[in-house]
Amino acid sequence: MRCELISVGTEILLGDIVNTNSQYLSKRLADLGIGVLHQSTVGDNRQRLLRALDGAFRENELVILTGGLGPTPDDLTKEVCAEYFGLPMYTDTAVAEKIKGYFEKKGLVMPESNLKQALIPEGSTVLYNNNGTAPGSIIEKDGKIAVILPGPPFEMKPMFEESVVPFLRRFSEHIILSCNVRTFGIGESAMSERVRHLLDNANPSVAPYAKSGEALLRITARAHSEKEAKGLIEPVLKEITELIGDYIYGVDVENIEEATVSLLKEKGLTVAFAESCTGGLCSKRVTDVAGASDVIHCGVVSYSNDIKNKVLGVSAEHLLKYTAVSDVVAAEMAKGIKELSGADFGVSVTGYAGPCFEGCTDEIGTIYIAVTDGESLWLKKLSTGRTDREYNRYVSASNALNEVRLCAAAYPEKRSEGMNLEFFIESR
Amino acid sequence: MRCELISVGTEILLGDIVNTNSQYLSKRLADLGIGVLHQSTVGDNRQRLLRALDGAFRENELVILTGGLGPTPDDLTKEVCAEYFGLPMYTDTAVAEKIKGYFEKKGLVMPESNLKQALIPEGSTVLYNNNGTAPGSIIEKDGKIAVILPGPPFEMKPMFEESVVPFLRRFSEHIILSCNVRTFGIGESAMSERVRHLLDNANPSVAPYAKSGEALLRITARAHSEKEAKGLIEPVLKEITELIGDYIYGVDVENIEEATVSLLKEKGLTVAFAESCTGGLCSKRVTDVAGASDVIHCGVVSYSNDIKNKVLGVSAEHLLKYTAVSDVVAAEMAKGIKELSGADFGVSVTGYAGPCFEGCTDEIGTIYIAVTDGESLWLKKLSTGRTDREYNRYVSASNALNEVRLCAAAYPEKRSEGMNLEFFIESR
Repeated sequence: MRCELISVGTEILLGDIVNTNSQYLSKRLADLGIGVLHQSTVGDNRQRLLRALDGAFRENELVILTGGLGPTPDDLTKEVCAEYFGLPMYTDTAVAEKIKGYFEKKGLVMPESNLKQALIPEGSTVLYNNNGTAPGSIIEKDGKIAVILPGPPFEMKPMFEESVVPFLRRFSEHIILSCNVRTFGIGESAMSERVRHLLDNANPSVAPYAKSGEALLRITARAHSEKEAKGLIEPVLKEITELIGDYIYGVDVENIEEATVSLLKEKGLTVAFAESCTGGLCSKRVTDVAGASDVIHCGVVSYSNDIKNKVLGVSAEHLLKYTAVSDVVAAEMAKGIKELSGADFGVSVTGYAGPCFEGCTDEIGTIYIAVTDGESLWLKKLSTGRTDREYNRYVSASNALNEVRLCAAAYPEKRSEGMNLEFFIESR
Repeated sequence: MRCELISVGTEILLGDIVNTNSQYLSKRLADLGIGVLHQSTVGDNRQRLLRALDGAFRENELVILTGGLGPTPDDLTKEVCAEYFGLPMYTDTAVAEKIKGYFEKKGLVMPESNLKQALIPEGSTVLYNNNGTAPGSIIEKDGKIAVILPGPPFEMKPMFEESVVPFLRRFSEHIILSCNVRTFGIGESAMSERVRHLLDNANPSVAPYAKSGEALLRITARAHSEKEAKGLIEPVLKEITELIGDYIYGVDVENIEEATVSLLKEKGLTVAFAESCTGGLCSKRVTDVAGASDVIHCGVVSYSNDIKNKVLGVSAEHLLKYTAVSDVVAAEMAKGIKELSGADFGVSVTGYAGPCFEGCTDEIGTIYIAVTDGESLWLKKLSTGRTDREYNRYVSASNALNEVRLCAAAYPEKRSEGMNLEFFIESR
């Protein structure tokens, strides 16, 4: 079964919002063995939406539309789909009651305009919305299937999982299983060269991707069962591990924070961050992972020198002499947060994230990361060569997370290449 | 001039990455008065890319392609565009030197495969890449313009700004000026009803949007000059302000963090966050704003009760009696961070962000936010009614930022509805 995704909304064409729905749906459809060959976005415009529907159904049996189900007059998706299939619309009283109930539960009176959302194309299956007012629907006619979902991701995702996934399972002939090999510290080109002979594989296929300071290899197998797919992937994964194993931080993990949290959890270790330029991003990324409370109890954002000194105990003399962006201040910040938190690892990040203001020097993109277990110190200096604040903050946090991961991976042994913490600080 | 965006990359169709390029380009093109009527995404596939190009040029004079310029064999965009226009490819030596230099600067040897990136369609304009290895290009032929850009946003954006914007300015006949009125505390439907008569306006148009706990109105004018466009927008903005002014937190600001930081800066005020369930997100969002160091010196992520007690001075008895998710603990956290940081406002967030584990109760989505200036206390309890961790964390942080904003807006007066901080805590 082939599928096209159509996102509806002038706000997407104007660049007001990022289209995350297409990514989510594509990923989930791939899991179901349904290939998405095309994604498109059209505005809240009857003619163009009709044309997009027509084009999509010419090459695909399944079209999933998101957005344009709101209560305002420019929301047209359901109406246009009904028109395309030649179906009249009716007011579904059960849906209308549910919408009223949604407002009542919040102690609000339903605006009249929301009743428009209870209009349903005749003969379609209603998908109830437990997280908002707009119901979805599934229209099956003439060998074509249109799935209509609300635009807000927090409404779309649960509706897709609860109602659409069970519906679509019927149509998956084979399954597609992917395995993501995530690496840190090697570029996409260098990684690709090491595994070059695998990139021509047909099944499973192997494809390299680059993503904000990381590179990943995706192994994708097509098979009749999960077991068969796993059997195809296994030897290729083994070969890749032999070739680039030193750089792999995780297989089928979402990201470096998930890999780090899960390793810390497994070993019963805790971590605490003292953040300057990342401003809370390390703690935020660790606590993005559900259940992070086992591994993180505390973090400090120490943006000013005064707080570095007062809360973390960084030497005022060192701050003056070496500035806040220096290896010794990074070391003292790590020491300070380790002592304050009692965590197994204290980690610090300090640097110049940018952007480039007047008097900007080469220093933008210079970041120091320190990790300590209380005795040893591991220091890393980054020179990203970029002045993009968001990039520099993200990559700094990724590196800090990776440094912790390397320490945790060695535990209970000590990770190599450490220095003596006290000696390092005192020798300044 | 009409434009279609084509994103190239199987990784997008598989849902491996979110397509942020389309959002960025759409926004910037709208600023230039170039209408994007369609966005589409195709995989790294010669046939389908050719078909997409053909379809796009049937309705538009300008097509901007992103992605598929990498060094690996599945990167095809330049080759397929050259084929579409019937242009041969040649190796551009200046580009080849620049790619070599990029690796040398990083102390690396260029992998041979990267030389593929120096292949350029004959007669096209080369766009040099200062942030990566893949050059872009502009092909102009037969009244059609194809702009080819690299996929990684950190390479694409500067190339677009430096080379493509000046090129496109030639083609803008009129300008489109938009004005975003951002609100907090009112839903999209309720907002729309209050300004209903304006939603039918043609020029400027007024359109409502909902976004993660916020609603915004976009006023868009089309005119021959910026001055003319501003003249069209002004009276409509004035009317909107009269109708929903209480909810507006900013006009033409990016988000609540930017509005809050800019207000604090303007009034010379500082803030510090003590975060439990948001785990650093408040500090992170404030420090996303460049120049935030004027308003934030410090933040504490206090995930565990022990840290709430030890670092922030929250009463152990209250933690035991009322639990960490309670109004009194929120108040004591705000007091603690205010004292520790010396900031003008101490802010705390504590709650259940989810997800729903076993034994999950209604409490998921219950969040307490407290703000104090040292004397008064402002408390807010949220019941989001959702179990989505990401949503709950985001909306909690947004509310915390909005609470600070309201306090700062009133300053030097005291914001109304405050309680006495000490009395509130001691009366427990």
